[in-house]
Amino acid sequence: MQAERIPDHAGVLEAARKIAAILPPTPLLPLEIGGVQLWAKAEVLQPIGAFKIRGAWHRLSALTDDERARGVVAVSSGNHAQGVAWAAKRLGIAATIVMPRDAPQVKLDATRALGAQIVLYDRPGEDRDAVAATLVEQSGAVLVHAFGDPWVIEGQGSAGIEIMQQLGRAPSRIVACCGGGGLAAGLALACPDSAIVPVEPVGWDMVGQSIARGELVQAAPDAPATICDALQPTATKAINLSLLRGRAEPGVTVADEEVRVAQRYAFAKLHLVVEPGGAAALAAALAGKVQLDSDTVVMLTGGNVDPAAFAHTIAAG
Amino acid sequence: MQAERIPDHAGVLEAARKIAAILPPTPLLPLEIGGVQLWAKAEVLQPIGAFKIRGAWHRLSALTDDERARGVVAVSSGNHAQGVAWAAKRLGIAATIVMPRDAPQVKLDATRALGAQIVLYDRPGEDRDAVAATLVEQSGAVLVHAFGDPWVIEGQGSAGIEIMQQLGRAPSRIVACCGGGGLAAGLALACPDSAIVPVEPVGWDMVGQSIARGELVQAAPDAPATICDALQPTATKAINLSLLRGRAEPGVTVADEEVRVAQRYAFAKLHLVVEPGGAAALAAALAGKVQLDSDTVVMLTGGNVDPAAFAHTIAAG
Repeated sequence: MQAERIPDHAGVLEAARKIAAILPPTPLLPLEIGGVQLWAKAEVLQPIGAFKIRGAWHRLSALTDDERARGVVAVSSGNHAQGVAWAAKRLGIAATIVMPRDAPQVKLDATRALGAQIVLYDRPGEDRDAVAATLVEQSGAVLVHAFGDPWVIEGQGSAGIEIMQQLGRAPSRIVACCGGGGLAAGLALACPDSAIVPVEPVGWDMVGQSIARGELVQAAPDAPATICDALQPTATKAINLSLLRGRAEPGVTVADEEVRVAQRYAFAKLHLVVEPGGAAALAAALAGKVQLDSDTVVMLTGGNVDPAAFAHTIAAG
Repeated sequence: MQAERIPDHAGVLEAARKIAAILPPTPLLPLEIGGVQLWAKAEVLQPIGAFKIRGAWHRLSALTDDERARGVVAVSSGNHAQGVAWAAKRLGIAATIVMPRDAPQVKLDATRALGAQIVLYDRPGEDRDAVAATLVEQSGAVLVHAFGDPWVIEGQGSAGIEIMQQLGRAPSRIVACCGGGGLAAGLALACPDSAIVPVEPVGWDMVGQSIARGELVQAAPDAPATICDALQPTATKAINLSLLRGRAEPGVTVADEEVRVAQRYAFAKLHLVVEPGGAAALAAALAGKVQLDSDTVVMLTGGNVDPAAFAHTIAAG
């Protein structure tokens, strides 16, 4: 029985080295909001269109030969799915991904195209973690949690190491789209001198509420609909909360229309395709909900969006 | 009276140094077409959304104090306009741009937002060069030609220097969207060991035809409509032809639907917004019209497209 890995700064540096060996850094693009010049980290330019490739690669490449032979299982709304499928394909590992039936078609298709087996579940009713646990029990596969895994947290933090290298200093503040809090926790480890600002959809601020209350808060069964399909965890995990408490600012949420404004802004000014969940941090910045200065970095975390939905959003601007 | 500048490799290197001092290199993104792994140079990520910022900066920053005081005049369908306006604003130079009345609204708006004065002309009827010549005569301003200017050619070539640095070697082939041939000529100077493949819209292959015949060929008055608004010069110039003859492969043209396929591909696979004229090179690659290998680079030259047009293109996929 392996001791539980404790994610730390050294692990983030290790992840950054491993990722730099196979993936070029994503660009840090200049951006001006309300007369302030700041930076956007374009993780939409990763091969799978999202930062999730980082944590998946750090985790899967650390598996033993025996673990690789047993395969991996992941639960994901679509971007972690593609990250795990991409890393598994490259390493010759079998991957099974539990995905919500209402995930964007592009995410389902891309995950399948990478060779992963997909098991669908119904988002409101079924417990996706239970579905995954059953699969793990049956196959002996290794579960790669989307945000509550120590390697995954370290891997996502590698984006922060890249940012410091590109900026030549620690950013004052990293504004990050937040689902379960894997990226935010990784950035907190990566950049100990930077404020971390997680941004969540209205009604889905499980990380912000958990930080504020000091305990894990579950999503309400009647939580409102959100266009941010990537940012709908039912709760964060203890490992994420322990890394974020005292390090991250709680309380920033964005509404659907603010997210659409950010998607249109990224289209017109940055020429980037950003999915709703990937535009949440930019939405908060544009809506004046976070403090901005010349050392602020806004994460653009994902760009996997159905063409019809994106067309509708930009044409409505 | 100043002697005519002869564009050369040393001038391209000088341009690359000047541009590296103010703009980060645009990423070279991995791309797979038909099982071949190749590269896309994402010039859509320049601050003005197009490579034209390169030539404009190299030219305007080389003006004497006296020339700067007299201002600059340019003719452009929109991207060179923004490049010149961007450089002029940064250097405190007055810029007047002659633009076609049917240019995309985003290009007109962005050029105006950068502080340039715009003079409109009607694309089929009026001679835009004559309009510009009159302005130059009246004001004594310096004409910055969109593709036939030695500094502009050297400046565009700086993209080739970046590519060689990023790839660690000379590319086998650079596939470049081609209007008047400024970029193609600059790349030919920058990368003497690489094949240069200009790609033009069907019926607007003035560069390809001129290379094939060894003389300047004018666009037919009844040339077909094209969605590539950025690639409709009435002819190339002697300076471009002299640099491209014997160096560039003539004959690659793309139809509107091939361009739309490429725009949809860039949207879905690269998460980049690419305008029609900026997607011509990728269109040729996807349509099997150019030879591809692992050292081939496809230029994505511009991303300035009206939201409604882009929405229509991606939703129709």
